[in-house]
Amino acid sequence: MAAPEQLEAYEGPATIEKVAALCRRRGFVFPTSDIYGGLGSSFDFGHYGVLLIQNVKSEWQRSMIQERDDVVALDSAIILNPQVWVASGHVGGFSDPLIDCRTCKHRFRADHLETSQCGRRPSKRPGETADCDLTEARDFNLMFETFIGPVREDASRAYLRPETAQGIFVNFKNVTSSMRVKPPFGIAQIGKSFRNEITPGNFLFRVREFEQMEMEFFVPPAEAAEWHTYWINERVRWHLDLGLRPSHLRVRAHGADELSHYSSATSDLEFLYPIGWQELEGVANRGDYDLNQHSEASGTKLEWIGHEERYVPHVIEPALGVGRSALAFLVDAYDEEVVADRPRTVLRLHPRIAPVKVAVLPLIGKEAPMVEKARPLYEELRKVMSAEYDDSGQIGKRYRRQDEIGTPWALTIDEQTLADGTVTLRDRDTLEQERIPLDGAKALLADRLEQPWHPRS
Amino acid sequence: MAAPEQLEAYEGPATIEKVAALCRRRGFVFPTSDIYGGLGSSFDFGHYGVLLIQNVKSEWQRSMIQERDDVVALDSAIILNPQVWVASGHVGGFSDPLIDCRTCKHRFRADHLETSQCGRRPSKRPGETADCDLTEARDFNLMFETFIGPVREDASRAYLRPETAQGIFVNFKNVTSSMRVKPPFGIAQIGKSFRNEITPGNFLFRVREFEQMEMEFFVPPAEAAEWHTYWINERVRWHLDLGLRPSHLRVRAHGADELSHYSSATSDLEFLYPIGWQELEGVANRGDYDLNQHSEASGTKLEWIGHEERYVPHVIEPALGVGRSALAFLVDAYDEEVVADRPRTVLRLHPRIAPVKVAVLPLIGKEAPMVEKARPLYEELRKVMSAEYDDSGQIGKRYRRQDEIGTPWALTIDEQTLADGTVTLRDRDTLEQERIPLDGAKALLADRLEQPWHPRS
Repeated sequence: MAAPEQLEAYEGPATIEKVAALCRRRGFVFPTSDIYGGLGSSFDFGHYGVLLIQNVKSEWQRSMIQERDDVVALDSAIILNPQVWVASGHVGGFSDPLIDCRTCKHRFRADHLETSQCGRRPSKRPGETADCDLTEARDFNLMFETFIGPVREDASRAYLRPETAQGIFVNFKNVTSSMRVKPPFGIAQIGKSFRNEITPGNFLFRVREFEQMEMEFFVPPAEAAEWHTYWINERVRWHLDLGLRPSHLRVRAHGADELSHYSSATSDLEFLYPIGWQELEGVANRGDYDLNQHSEASGTKLEWIGHEERYVPHVIEPALGVGRSALAFLVDAYDEEVVADRPRTVLRLHPRIAPVKVAVLPLIGKEAPMVEKARPLYEELRKVMSAEYDDSGQIGKRYRRQDEIGTPWALTIDEQTLADGTVTLRDRDTLEQERIPLDGAKALLADRLEQPWHPRS
Repeated sequence: MAAPEQLEAYEGPATIEKVAALCRRRGFVFPTSDIYGGLGSSFDFGHYGVLLIQNVKSEWQRSMIQERDDVVALDSAIILNPQVWVASGHVGGFSDPLIDCRTCKHRFRADHLETSQCGRRPSKRPGETADCDLTEARDFNLMFETFIGPVREDASRAYLRPETAQGIFVNFKNVTSSMRVKPPFGIAQIGKSFRNEITPGNFLFRVREFEQMEMEFFVPPAEAAEWHTYWINERVRWHLDLGLRPSHLRVRAHGADELSHYSSATSDLEFLYPIGWQELEGVANRGDYDLNQHSEASGTKLEWIGHEERYVPHVIEPALGVGRSALAFLVDAYDEEVVADRPRTVLRLHPRIAPVKVAVLPLIGKEAPMVEKARPLYEELRKVMSAEYDDSGQIGKRYRRQDEIGTPWALTIDEQTLADGTVTLRDRDTLEQERIPLDGAKALLADRLEQPWHPRS
């Protein structure tokens, strides 16, 4: 971490625009409701996008829950009792300061005024022209509101959760009384959250509707600093194991002036996106703030009661967005090169993250003897991994398509298969082709999926 | 299907209340925000609930997408452009008729008036007492409303989707232009939907915030009836393969008076819950209604253009709720019996649905030689399946806990393990214990997970 070889600025072939264009063309990500003109920065995931984000989530879950003894899962509702958000401080304080212009009627974030554009032509920064008539800044709450039941009155007002974390805190007692856990232990949750951002943007980087992966790790107060360090290291390892370049990842501790009101220490894992170093994941030491707030507001004391001890645990929280994580994997994997005088675009995704693990390709798509070998192989493979069968057109074009969606391996059935029972295994990254026995293909690929991936700089 | 051996009424040991109590006690399902008094019929999933619903979703996805050539995945946003819901008919017509009582101020569904209770004491049915002063029925839209951006005005009004289907229809062109699909083909989606129900209830059966599994299958118009039948049969097979009793499942075709405005034929797969026969899944023939509505409203023609043909596909839609499906598996699996004079509660879940596949239990929890065998076995198993390690207390109590969460297998490490390298494999359902080599346990269980399960009546 904080290794000296990290880059100052992004130097790779990706841009946000190129990645977004590939995502749309190849069925990863579409603008939401785009036949109706879209809906600001909101996106739908197509087939390969669904598989990609499922892989990201399932790797997180495998590492954070399945392969540990000390973390359990939770999936709380999006609409909670609104008292939760009063106690957490979100009703009172989860807001951006906004400024209105009485002339052009636009609204601007007070802390973004320098880079905002006036709604009038010629467009300038607000305040630069005599036309501008700006109000004082007023706080605008970022929670989406809705109403439960048929009557629209204050009693039925509710919010779409702006984070999954509070759903974990209010279940502290449910979990400790039903599961075999004791501190240090964690509760992990993956789910949608909503923030009514004034200025979303940069493709999947900042959106109003997003999915989070959050884990609250409850520890004896004296151990909080140690566990904070532990989780920073664990989370760095996770991103690197799944293929992010070490030179594109760094840890930055928040200064005292940056800390949230609930946090005694926060470190960001920052990633070098094409737009520069940005937060990929936060690891916060939330102390006992949240459990105390909910104890006081609900009248239910949230604490750990052991045989000879009784205390309010402190909380370490690693939290990141699925979309922001997927975008990091995509831009880091994006590559362009020229092979045999032809340009090639390729997503060098880690095999466990790649939407499709293997493509099965009969060299001559409609030739019955090849199909008779290729179909059963494909149908055997897809039982245990995401696989594709493609018998369309030229083989080169089919390889190119698989390169663009990041498929690490292709198995080609050709004349030689009919003669000796071997198939060609093509590697997406090296373009090397080796002949392997058709019968052993499934076991070989299943094994490769479990192996560590070659490191990148 | 519609087999003669189906039951008239539920006769098993489960009740909704018993299943809900077990779910809470054992960490499957908690009332949402219950330290704040809950939020009506809304639930959070605990650790085992998360694993259970993930298994249900992943079996659906495996059967509907991964093991097919002709269905692709989609994950559209919860908040779509509001024009989508105008075109789909939801803004105009997705409503319940409501009646107010001017005396007690309560609201009732006009079509449920017979079974509703007046808010006054002594409570009677509205209209039964002279006190009641009922209004005419008025339509109440079931969509949750919210507002995007900082200004609360009509232009920024939006809805939480009441179904995932429309997110599929509006992406028809994105999918056909980016993926190698042609009719007949499907687009499948799993995700949360929201309906502002006036009278939710019966635990997970009817809730306001729920997760759906929907697939829209686009076919040439002439083939619609045939594919409708095909999908009814496929979906029945899925439920039975995963362990629902044939005597608890039936297919019922809607009468002409029950059909939605968009549907030319719908069949419900009904399940015999403890509360009686209820809809578990619907398989609708939606015709070309939705694509036509969105073509007209958006100005983008949604149609299939082949080499020599051009038409608006008809749509067959199998759709069910994750919670309702999980509840069916839970109540059908719930069993009580007396073993060796002691009562036993057991969830006889299909192994692929069960939250935990195997428990690893050192007979004497703290004895180092047993732990040295048990821990590595557990750590090997959890890499490939959900596993638990339990070294707490009496072995009988540990078995009982695993029975209640539906774990099909337990591996016990005892004195004999140290002598001959075998472990005890205990079967949850038969209670039989066999000795198997420790080294072969992982392969044996992985193989059993792939086998068809023993059928039940």
